[in-house]
Amino acid sequence: MLIIGIDPGYAILGYGVISYVGNRFEVIEYGTVTTSPDMELPDRLKKIYEDLHVLFDKYKPDAVAIEELFFNRNVTTALMVGHARGAAVVAAAKANLEIYEYTPLQVKQGVVGYGRADKKQVQIMVKTLLNMKEIPRPDDAADALAVGICHAHSGIMEKHFKIK
Amino acid sequence: MLIIGIDPGYAILGYGVISYVGNRFEVIEYGTVTTSPDMELPDRLKKIYEDLHVLFDKYKPDAVAIEELFFNRNVTTALMVGHARGAAVVAAAKANLEIYEYTPLQVKQGVVGYGRADKKQVQIMVKTLLNMKEIPRPDDAADALAVGICHAHSGIMEKHFKIK
Repeated sequence: MLIIGIDPGYAILGYGVISYVGNRFEVIEYGTVTTSPDMELPDRLKKIYEDLHVLFDKYKPDAVAIEELFFNRNVTTALMVGHARGAAVVAAAKANLEIYEYTPLQVKQGVVGYGRADKKQVQIMVKTLLNMKEIPRPDDAADALAVGICHAHSGIMEKHFKIK
Repeated sequence: MLIIGIDPGYAILGYGVISYVGNRFEVIEYGTVTTSPDMELPDRLKKIYEDLHVLFDKYKPDAVAIEELFFNRNVTTALMVGHARGAAVVAAAKANLEIYEYTPLQVKQGVVGYGRADKKQVQIMVKTLLNMKEIPRPDDAADALAVGICHAHSGIMEKHFKIK
């Protein structure tokens, strides 16, 4: 099973491509889509859409797992990150891919085994499970790989986008 | 000049197509893109993207004017509407259209002449300027037409997406 995990954001969006066959993980590719604050918002969203389109077209994954976002604080930030996440979801939906979402709590549970794990523990587990020599950088890419692992471990839970 | 105004939303997105030639407006088409709460979020965003894609392809407007959104209150709502607005902006950006955004204040100023106008005053002005027999329904479509009028009256201000 080929999975692409995504940690959404509009300045930096992390992605990680992994395969999961017979309880064994393999890391295929990971990285980020970055957009500059000098770009107009439509151009930033278009770049996110198009870069992900290329990625989805290249790998034709069985599943796209995208982290759910929470904001306690800034409504403006939520609105902006919502734009970026919307662009990413549209790119996956237009490619007719299966899309799943996981909360940060679910990702920690799915990767480390308990929801109160800290960022470092998650990263070490990602490195270990994927047989990598180093913790993947940057954090956004490591987070995206973690979301992908979470999906693999979830046993393909039913698709759920809870907020409607 | 052909302008498409958009009042973004994920349950109901209003749109209005107007032409503005020699200080005279003509209404070409208006309506809404609606998505059901029974649909998964990716399918809702895909529908918004695709319906707007068809609209943009049909009219090839000189400008797309999209209302800016403000939320004092609910961060979750802001995140969700951000998704929908992101899908709409990507659809316009992918069609290589010129995209402008206006705040609710700018729309009121641009349509009625002052920023403290109420909704009803804006709607009556939309009806009058577009030579319509009735106030256009639903409100989302009337709002979208107002955004389009605002853009025409702005004299094609420079493109501005202020939040970066």
